[in-house]
Amino acid sequence: MNPFELIKTSPFSKARLGKLTTDHGVIHTPIFMPVGTAASVKGVSPRDLEELKAEIILANTYHLYLRPGTSLIAKAGGIHRFMNWNHPVLTDSGGFQVWSLKELRKIKENGVEFRSHLDGSKHFFSPESVMKAQREIGADIIMAFDECTPFPSTEKEAEHSLNYTLRWTESAMKYLAENPPLHPYRQFFFGIIQGGMHIPLRKRAIEAIKELNPDGYALGGLSVGEPAELMYKIADACTDTLPKDRARYVMGVGTPWNLLELIGRGIDMFDCVMPTRNARNGMLFTSEGVLRYKGGRYSQMFDRAPDPNCNCYTCRNFSIAYLRHLHHSKEILAFTLASIHNLHFYLNLMQQAKDHLAADTFEPWAKEQIVRLQQEVCGDEGS
Amino acid sequence: MNPFELIKTSPFSKARLGKLTTDHGVIHTPIFMPVGTAASVKGVSPRDLEELKAEIILANTYHLYLRPGTSLIAKAGGIHRFMNWNHPVLTDSGGFQVWSLKELRKIKENGVEFRSHLDGSKHFFSPESVMKAQREIGADIIMAFDECTPFPSTEKEAEHSLNYTLRWTESAMKYLAENPPLHPYRQFFFGIIQGGMHIPLRKRAIEAIKELNPDGYALGGLSVGEPAELMYKIADACTDTLPKDRARYVMGVGTPWNLLELIGRGIDMFDCVMPTRNARNGMLFTSEGVLRYKGGRYSQMFDRAPDPNCNCYTCRNFSIAYLRHLHHSKEILAFTLASIHNLHFYLNLMQQAKDHLAADTFEPWAKEQIVRLQQEVCGDEGS
Repeated sequence: MNPFELIKTSPFSKARLGKLTTDHGVIHTPIFMPVGTAASVKGVSPRDLEELKAEIILANTYHLYLRPGTSLIAKAGGIHRFMNWNHPVLTDSGGFQVWSLKELRKIKENGVEFRSHLDGSKHFFSPESVMKAQREIGADIIMAFDECTPFPSTEKEAEHSLNYTLRWTESAMKYLAENPPLHPYRQFFFGIIQGGMHIPLRKRAIEAIKELNPDGYALGGLSVGEPAELMYKIADACTDTLPKDRARYVMGVGTPWNLLELIGRGIDMFDCVMPTRNARNGMLFTSEGVLRYKGGRYSQMFDRAPDPNCNCYTCRNFSIAYLRHLHHSKEILAFTLASIHNLHFYLNLMQQAKDHLAADTFEPWAKEQIVRLQQEVCGDEGS
Repeated sequence: MNPFELIKTSPFSKARLGKLTTDHGVIHTPIFMPVGTAASVKGVSPRDLEELKAEIILANTYHLYLRPGTSLIAKAGGIHRFMNWNHPVLTDSGGFQVWSLKELRKIKENGVEFRSHLDGSKHFFSPESVMKAQREIGADIIMAFDECTPFPSTEKEAEHSLNYTLRWTESAMKYLAENPPLHPYRQFFFGIIQGGMHIPLRKRAIEAIKELNPDGYALGGLSVGEPAELMYKIADACTDTLPKDRARYVMGVGTPWNLLELIGRGIDMFDCVMPTRNARNGMLFTSEGVLRYKGGRYSQMFDRAPDPNCNCYTCRNFSIAYLRHLHHSKEILAFTLASIHNLHFYLNLMQQAKDHLAADTFEPWAKEQIVRLQQEVCGDEGS
């Protein structure tokens, strides 16, 4: 079943407008999904997320599996009820997380053995067990269990890991076909395209996954250390071959300018911890570029919002001097206010992208934004 | 100038209804003041505080003096503008904080030398410097610089520290008379009554402070380790002698039942870190008693609000199972949601007290609540 409807492709690029319909609501693409690792977007309440007009959030199967346990979420009636978020949710498969554990995991033919980063306990993820976990969590969109390819990797290494992913995707879809959702709404399944930085392998992956006819397609194994230009090139090559009528999602990417570059290459969906994590570390994305609000030069800017052009709760109500004070005082409110701003920035950027796509003005706007948003706002004069 | 108006005294006890008018708004007593140590109530935004109907918050001169510095807050136009809280604020004098530093402070005739808990740097607070700091911060109510009496203490020790406080209060008021507010609104000054657990000393302190005619009266040196009954007894003796037409504030107290006991003895104002600090540590105050929400028995209570009788944002929207999960996952949202609940509980309790005082039903209601609120809700079965 295809939840995606392609509304429009730009006459000047591969950028697209679309919508994706789930039983918890409609998602308008291009879209950014705030990351709620453990069924909470860090520092931000569901009410804040609604005010930010977030249409969908992402949660991590690996983290929820370890704590509180996916069977517990099943008993709660699924993640929407558990966390009081009555809008769409996507869960990743945990593939990327267990791959990131490096020393703590061992890849086997039928899955990955790993140790919990919390308590060192031993666990095993198979394509089937991960589908079961995602059935229990009950997200609207669930992801294939994949084997991520490191960067750099030889063609042989990339092919080896790609082959795992293809076999595991088949196993996952078989499991899903035989085991309907546990909750009374649909769960769409997205396949994941691996293949490292090797375009022929990426193409082979797409052809193989197409055969399985998933509900949507994700590009995995990007933003793993390669130069941004190479990421764009791989994504560009992939969208040449991906079916036009299905949603395309690049996992774990990225900066605001990464998103605009990838939208221009035909990508519809994104998620990244960057807006919330960087907010907690003192970095804001603003209309004038990147701003490191811990800097001493901001300590007396009482009349300046963090982003004077921004309409979020934080920028409407607080000065950069106060935000800086909160951060230096390790006040929780610093994390909340900065996260609200950065999420607003990402979500608003996606809304602007949609507006420009509708008006056929996306490309010149995006080009200008890509330069502007990477600037450093003032210098950080220390504190 | 007396900002307080006594509206009513209960026909059955010393409990009072009153109002205190500041240039940032009217405060209805009995009142609880959430603590915003560093110009932020931990984990809670000004918007949340307004929704909670907090009428006044407290901030700490000691903390603001160290970070961001009181002269910086003066430049911001005062604490209200600095933190975007356009309602009344009270600042303590820092007397209690430097007294608490113990090994890091040395009491001298004209003030206290202390080392910062942040970086060990050396500082000196005098009655005058603390008034200057509070002029800069710009709270609506500012407090005398006092020397707190430890518990237990001999009469001689208590008298020694009382004498400091009396001299320092005189110096503080002299400073205030000679140095008008820096911000364009009034700042009311409350004297602090010390005297340890020695009623004759407390009475002497009251008589001496009365001579100085401050705008209101606070009882300091309570809740420093003495049994609750002794605290009640001291407060009771003090309110027998304090002027009836002035506000009475017990500093740093306490549990919900402490507040009800003290209201019954004629106290009008309270502040305490307990609702927010305990929230972060996993303890909720509820209509059925104290609830330690980290307990394993709550892990699957998906349909139970933390307090089923509560109407706060947290209880309206989230289960105790989810709150427990957030706490165990160290999610910031746990602190925010639990703090919102506990503050709502305190503020709502004060509203109920006012309603019962208006209806002449305060005493039987309070008596029942005092028993009920101290109960433990369920046992904590560990986790």
